[in-house]
Formats: sequence, structure tokens, C-alpha cells
Amino acid sequence: MIDLSPRFSAEAAELRPSPIRRLAAVINDPSYVSFAGGVPNPETFPTAALAEIVARLLRDRPQEVLQYSPTWGPKPLREFIARRMEDFGVSRGIDGILVTSGSQQALDLVARVLLDPGDVLFVELPSYVGALAAFRARSAKLMGIPARGDGGWDLPALAERIRAARREGLKVKGIYAIPNFQNPAGTSIPAEQRPAIAAFLAENDLLCIEDDPYGELNYTGVSTTPLASCDREDRVVYLGTFSKVLAPALRTAWIAGSPPLVARCELAKQAADLCSSSLDQQTVAEFCAAGLLPAQIEKVREIYRGRRRTMLETLDRELPADCSFTRADGGLFSWVTLPAGVRGLDSDRLLEAALAEERIAFVPGTGFFVEGEEGKRTLRLTFAKETDERMKDGLARLASLIRRTLEAGRRPSGSMPVPPIA
Amino acid sequence: MIDLSPRFSAEAAELRPSPIRRLAAVINDPSYVSFAGGVPNPETFPTAALAEIVARLLRDRPQEVLQYSPTWGPKPLREFIARRMEDFGVSRGIDGILVTSGSQQALDLVARVLLDPGDVLFVELPSYVGALAAFRARSAKLMGIPARGDGGWDLPALAERIRAARREGLKVKGIYAIPNFQNPAGTSIPAEQRPAIAAFLAENDLLCIEDDPYGELNYTGVSTTPLASCDREDRVVYLGTFSKVLAPALRTAWIAGSPPLVARCELAKQAADLCSSSLDQQTVAEFCAAGLLPAQIEKVREIYRGRRRTMLETLDRELPADCSFTRADGGLFSWVTLPAGVRGLDSDRLLEAALAEERIAFVPGTGFFVEGEEGKRTLRLTFAKETDERMKDGLARLASLIRRTLEAGRRPSGSMPVPPIA
Repeated sequence: MIDLSPRFSAEAAELRPSPIRRLAAVINDPSYVSFAGGVPNPETFPTAALAEIVARLLRDRPQEVLQYSPTWGPKPLREFIARRMEDFGVSRGIDGILVTSGSQQALDLVARVLLDPGDVLFVELPSYVGALAAFRARSAKLMGIPARGDGGWDLPALAERIRAARREGLKVKGIYAIPNFQNPAGTSIPAEQRPAIAAFLAENDLLCIEDDPYGELNYTGVSTTPLASCDREDRVVYLGTFSKVLAPALRTAWIAGSPPLVARCELAKQAADLCSSSLDQQTVAEFCAAGLLPAQIEKVREIYRGRRRTMLETLDRELPADCSFTRADGGLFSWVTLPAGVRGLDSDRLLEAALAEERIAFVPGTGFFVEGEEGKRTLRLTFAKETDERMKDGLARLASLIRRTLEAGRRPSGSMPVPPIA
Repeated sequence: MIDLSPRFSAEAAELRPSPIRRLAAVINDPSYVSFAGGVPNPETFPTAALAEIVARLLRDRPQEVLQYSPTWGPKPLREFIARRMEDFGVSRGIDGILVTSGSQQALDLVARVLLDPGDVLFVELPSYVGALAAFRARSAKLMGIPARGDGGWDLPALAERIRAARREGLKVKGIYAIPNFQNPAGTSIPAEQRPAIAAFLAENDLLCIEDDPYGELNYTGVSTTPLASCDREDRVVYLGTFSKVLAPALRTAWIAGSPPLVARCELAKQAADLCSSSLDQQTVAEFCAAGLLPAQIEKVREIYRGRRRTMLETLDRELPADCSFTRADGGLFSWVTLPAGVRGLDSDRLLEAALAEERIAFVPGTGFFVEGEEGKRTLRLTFAKETDERMKDGLARLASLIRRTLEAGRRPSGSMPVPPIA
């Protein structure tokens, strides 16, 4: 056997597994209480309606739904999406809509079309690991957007970082943003800053990839106006998905952008997988055409609204006072920050203890950052998976573990138990 | 609006539409007789069995088949594929099997993991356009494999081309091959040359991407031993698919290769689309587990065997004697070569005439080549789509058009009709 590794591409060397992946076994083991993962609760799936549609499609149109299909996706679905985008103030027309195999493929295609190796993309800190993986696979240089503390961006500081990068000769291409209830932090860009960000893109000659998988999972009714709706120059390409409101397995998402950009993405998709599953896409198209989406979205919101309340109330009650957490208005996550200045505090080590001592899983924050040692005091918790009872129990025990860990880290060094010499 | 095109990546600039794509409308219009396309005949789809399996999965395991699923694909399906590969003499184990969204994604993933911009990949001439697109998207340099005339390769001439390229400082990475009933030419690498090719890879330190979508569509019983089965050094990565024997829409194919390479492909797939459709993959897994595949393959072969016979007999009878065509033992295609030395002969122009005058479609050969002006005297015909009657009628009219075109091109220039001055 030869050693293949010296033959791998530079891109292959950039590939790394998702930090969530090693938790996969635990997430699916009911003997663990899991705040890890980030997948929809299967209770939200409209299984009966989907089964009925699939059966009808296979009975009435098998030759179509089992065959290769247009790379663009089904025209009625693109029309439905184009109309829906108009409702959100984003008019790109059907030529600006490409249906993709999930948002991850949308990220990959946009990255292929816009990013050369070494191009700089600014990302929120923390940000979505799947997007970071897609951008790293293009050998992009990722830099952090300075935060303002309320989910908004410190635009003067960002402008300075961009100017500094450009002075160094770097090619700053644009920004990746998750404006609504972002994964992992659960924060949103305040509505009033969104027009300013669109103007900022124009002033600084930037493009923007706006990723909005959670906008529909809105539990409080806050404004979720897309950045794309404030964009008058085609600088924003918007990504939406049915994964969180219908079912992830249907792998149906979309890119909405300027037609020349989306046409390039479509060519990239031809090379990437020719076409998505016709059966899956036609099922989504029929679900939407039957007018079932609004009630389905309302059902999903109702399910998560109660779980979110349980998580936030339990964290309020149980978490030590010097820990903070985000009160997401939507999405699937809360983000916990542990206090600074505690010796040896590290959420990766906290996870090891939580798994071993409490059979509790969460995602440590470090994987969501791009520079250095950030995120060591942060953890992502999802309220999507567990029942209210298990959530209350698990969060109380996690809070207790955090309390013990903080106390141990604050004890004077001398008082630490000394291990016997082995 | 800003002009986005200067902001596109170098990869985006390499993207070009498939030469078959502009024929899509014609292929689906029954008023045309189509020898274009290359998609399976829907008569071959096991619709009833698939509908039954899908209904059962959505009834019994909705939480699983509608959820995100492992990037690797379902374990029982990977085990089935691993056993099947063993039957073909390829032992890679389950860790060497990655299920992909169709063979196109397999090509894309392997290209990402193995090819850097400028790397040289040798390809058969003609070769599959989708593979060429995936390699071009990586900015690979594609060069032609010298042919031997019987579907085999001229290995001494190929060795010379490789040495020449390496002397020029080019990084020759490997070879892309479709050994069985290839698209577009319908030819196969003779069984007796396959061990020599495996040895050639070792002697010349090459990798090989072996693409085998048609091996099961074997109508004459010729040997289809994979190159991978002759490989003792893990130099060959094998790509197989269910698209041609089950249904393309299920987007279920696989990579079988050395585990370290396949593990890198799996990381690339995480970044590309996270996972394929669980519903589709589980449907294929259940179809295979139920033992339905062998009879299904036999049914598919029977359907195409008759159509192939009709095409070959009609071409024997109708095509001018100075045209040649391939007698594919399997797959979906015959490849027609028109005589040399005829003035203005060009299969692209022939297509325009066939569409306009005869309402007949085929694919001109040029798109299947990589260098210069090749393929102008060649056309790809599929026997997959049309009934025997329509095939006979269409081929007779196409042959007549070819005859008229050859006669016109051989007339002395002076005898050409002079258009009136406009």
C-alpha cells in the first residue's frame, strides 16, 4: 500500500471534523441528557402530510419524481420561494432562486463561486461551524467581526479591521452573517442596525452571505427583516431552508441572490451533484403548494416556544449568578458564558466531566471561533431535543457541576487535593 | 447594482454548462425523436417496490428517515456495498465505503481531495462531460490518453506523454477512466489489458479514479472486472452508483477506496452538504436488504438489450458505409464517427439541421474532448429513450440527413448553389 496523504490536495489538508460530530453517539443515547446537537425535534415533522404527498407523487408522477431533474430545482417551488422572499422584502425574481441540497450546499456553492484561496471573509464570533468548514475548504482567511454586546456589530471597529487587512494587501471579499437567532449564540442583529449594515457593505465594497435558517423559528415576534431587503446593490446573497420547519432529510434549501451570481452557483451545482433528489424537492413543492406551510411553521414555533421557556427559566433559577446566558427570541440555542479569571476553566474539560459524572452533553464553544484560544469559557445549549422534565433535571445537574468547577478553580492552589505519587 | 463578475472566484470562471443541457427542452418534447440525453428509461424504475418501501419507512421510522443522518450514509447500505464490491474482487471494507449524492458528488469529492489547481489528470478521449466539469472546477489540467483503437490504451505512448509532462514540471496526479461501456463512446477497456493498467499505475506512480456507472448494464456477458480489483497498492478509487439500475432521483452512489482517502472524502462531504437525503438512502438500503437488486438488474438489462439490438441493426442497415459506429456490449450509448476529408463537416452543424429539418436530437461529440478541435466528426446516440419503432424511423431519417450532408460536402465547390445577392 502506498501512503496517499502526500497526494492529497491543499484543500483536503484544511478539512477538519465538526466539533459536534464526536458527540453524535451521545446525542442519540437516551441515557444521556443532551443539550448538544442542533437538529430539529422530530415531533415537529409533518410526517402524515409528507407520507401522503410522497405516496401520491409515486403513484401519479413516478417517471418524473424518480428521474434526474433540473439542477435549478422544480419551477413551482422556485416560484413559491420567490414570492415568499418578496413577502420578506427581497425581490430577486425566479432567476435569482436556486434550490439546493440543504443550506450546507448553498454555503458550499456560494463559497466556490465567490472565494479564492486567501480571500478574507469576516464572520461573527461565534459562528456556525458548518459555514466555517465550507469557507475553510476554499482556503479562505476568516477574521472576526467586532461585537457590540447586544448582537449588533461594532461597525467603526470593523471598518478599521477591514482597512488594516487591505493595507496588508489582503483581498477582503465580504461578510458572513446569521442575523436571526444565530447558531450558536442565539443572538440577533438588532433590527435598527440592519439598514446601517447594508449601507456599510456599499461604503466598504463588500459582499455579504446572509444565512437565515432560523428566521421562521421566531417565538416572540421580533423583527427579522433580512439584510437582503435593505440591499439596493445586489451585495447580499440570502440563504434559506426548509430543514428547520419541515424535515432536514428532504435536504431542501435555497439561494436567493442576483441572477448572474445565482447562475454561477447553478453551474457549480452541476459540477457538484448534477441535481438534488427530485422526490424530496417535489414533496416540498407540493407541501408548499397545498398551503400547508403557515400552519406547520406555527406548530413548530409552539413546540419550541415552551421548551425555550423551560430552558430560560431553569437557567435563571439554577445557574450561578456570575454566569451569563443569552435569551434567544428564536432558533434552537442559548449560549452560556462562564466567569473570567477562574483557574483552569475550560468548557472542553467541563464537557468531559459532564459526560462522565452526569451523563449530560453540550457543545463547548471553542469550535465556533476562528482565532486562537477564544471560546474556552462558553458552551452552546439547545432546547430542541429534551422534554421539559429531562431539561429541568439535566440543567440543574449541569449548573451544579459548573458551580463545583468554579469553586475548585477559585480555591487557593495549596488547598487542591494532591494526587498520590503513582 | 454592482457588477459581481469581477468578484467571482477563479473556479467560477472555469465553470461552463454541460453541452447536453441546451438540448434539455428537446429531449423532453415527444415531437422530437431523441438520441440525446443519457438518462435511464423510466420503464426500468422499480416504482411499485420503491413506493412500498417509502411508505413503510415513513410509517415505521419517520423520526429517523426525516432527520439529519450520518455523512457516511446508512451502515447497512455501506455493508451491502462492501460485500458487493468483494464479489467484484474489490476488498476495501466498510471503512472504505462512503455513500454519496450520486456519482457526480463522488467525482466532486474525489476531485476536491486529490486535485490542486494545475495538477494533470489524464482522461480518455472522449470522456464523460460531468467528470470533466468536476475536474475543471478544481482547475485541473486535463490531457488525453492515447487510444489503441479497441477501447484499450496505448500505454507506451501514454508513458511518453506522462514523462514529457513531468519534464515540463507539471504534477501528473493520475488517470480518470470509465472502463465499462463508457459514456459517451460505448467502448470498454479489454479485460486482458486491465492488469497491465494496474501495473502501469504503480510503475508511473499514478492514482486512478475508476468510474463505473454502467458495469451492471451488461447485455452480452463480457468481463467487467474493475481496475480496482487488480490494484495491490490502493492507487485506484472506485465509484459506483444505483442511478442506472434503480432510479437517478434517489441520488445514491458510492466511493470505494482506501480508508484514509475515503475518510478525507467524508470530511469534504460534511463541508459540501452535511449528509444526503436519509429517506432516499434508506429506501435504497431497504431495497437491497430485501434481496430485490439482482432481479431488478436483470429486468433493466432485458429492457435495454432489445433497444440496443434495434439501434445496432438499424445503423448497420441505414448508415452510409464510410461512417462507423461502436457496438457497445453494455451501457446506454453508441458513438458514430463520420468520414474524414469532407468539406465543412461538423456535428454541431449537423445537429442544427437534424433539429430543424427532421426534429431529431443527438449530442455532438466536441463537448466530450479536452483539447482543441477534436470530436467534430462524432456524435453520441443513446438507445435508452425511444421505442423500437421511433428509433428505426429516427435513425433512418438521421442516416439520410448524414448521407445528404456528406454528398453536399463532397460536391466540387463550383457546383454549390450560389445565393442571390440580398
